[in-house]
Amino acid sequence: MAYDLVRENPWERTEAFGKLSPAHRTPAIHNPDRGVILADSRAICEYFEETVDKSPMINGTAVNRAEIRRLVALFDENFYADVTLPLLEERMKKRLVYRSPPDSKRLRDSMRLADEHLYYIDYLIDNRPWLAGSTMSLADLAAAAQISVADYLGGIDWSGHEQARSWYSVFKSRPSFRPLLSERMDVIQPPSHYADVNA
Amino acid sequence: MAYDLVRENPWERTEAFGKLSPAHRTPAIHNPDRGVILADSRAICEYFEETVDKSPMINGTAVNRAEIRRLVALFDENFYADVTLPLLEERMKKRLVYRSPPDSKRLRDSMRLADEHLYYIDYLIDNRPWLAGSTMSLADLAAAAQISVADYLGGIDWSGHEQARSWYSVFKSRPSFRPLLSERMDVIQPPSHYADVNA
Repeated sequence: MAYDLVRENPWERTEAFGKLSPAHRTPAIHNPDRGVILADSRAICEYFEETVDKSPMINGTAVNRAEIRRLVALFDENFYADVTLPLLEERMKKRLVYRSPPDSKRLRDSMRLADEHLYYIDYLIDNRPWLAGSTMSLADLAAAAQISVADYLGGIDWSGHEQARSWYSVFKSRPSFRPLLSERMDVIQPPSHYADVNA
Repeated sequence: MAYDLVRENPWERTEAFGKLSPAHRTPAIHNPDRGVILADSRAICEYFEETVDKSPMINGTAVNRAEIRRLVALFDENFYADVTLPLLEERMKKRLVYRSPPDSKRLRDSMRLADEHLYYIDYLIDNRPWLAGSTMSLADLAAAAQISVADYLGGIDWSGHEQARSWYSVFKSRPSFRPLLSERMDVIQPPSHYADVNA
């Protein structure tokens, strides 16, 4: 699927973006040729699942598909609220928007919760080749998307998580994922292991 | 679909419930006859959508279905975080668990945000018979589920929201919804209009 990426800061609540996503949530997709506007990450993924034939990401029996969707929700909602959101607010928003120092207790709490989530990934990968079962799925994409942001912001301590680390390292070497790892925020640099596919 | 309802307080994080829902999120479904365990509200709804023939709740073209899922996310995530969660914490959890008075500023904020969500429902109902289009869908169920909790806790001011009120009043009179409206929490009573289908 070809696309042009347009950057949007949702907190600015621009009128133009509100027409694509009334709740001002990213991501949204606009296809002017077909007159299609879609918002909400999972609604967009289900749409592609229904309209694009090749490489399904929500695969298998109804029970397999429910397991994929459970894990997508776990990473999109729980991991995001526990880890990604506090890291983004403390390490990025406070620096760029509020020019204030991060809350070190909130950072410690988010790193402790990240550790619990990594133990759960270790457990899943001990029992299955990929997070939701025998093939890669939207669950792996959702998990890797959250983890890559948390890892960029220094919130992930990989020590003691060999299963999670090896799962993520396979992911980092995928052609679709490598370009993402070369992107940089303006003022915040990631730790040295961040884009290293052997780390 | 026949079921027995089992009450669970997710904050108690019981080991038994963790086996059904590792993130200790409600709802979860256990069908011991088929050996099926499902967790996450949307994963469960998509599972029924795929396995039960009658009365689909995610209906129509791929674009229609994306619109239904966008609105489900809006109510499950945004309305919940803006309105339902603060009301539950301030009006229920503080009373039953912490025995402390509610934070009146947080209550006012949640009621102001509820008002914004009701304006959005007015706008949708001005343009369509049901929230996501021409037929009732999971979007209406998700919205009514959040609103009924907020309304029980006195967080909804219906004045000035005739479209939203008439949409919800049709919902309240449905046979599937009426039993829910007769349930009561132990110590908190709802406002007098709560279960009145003519209000």
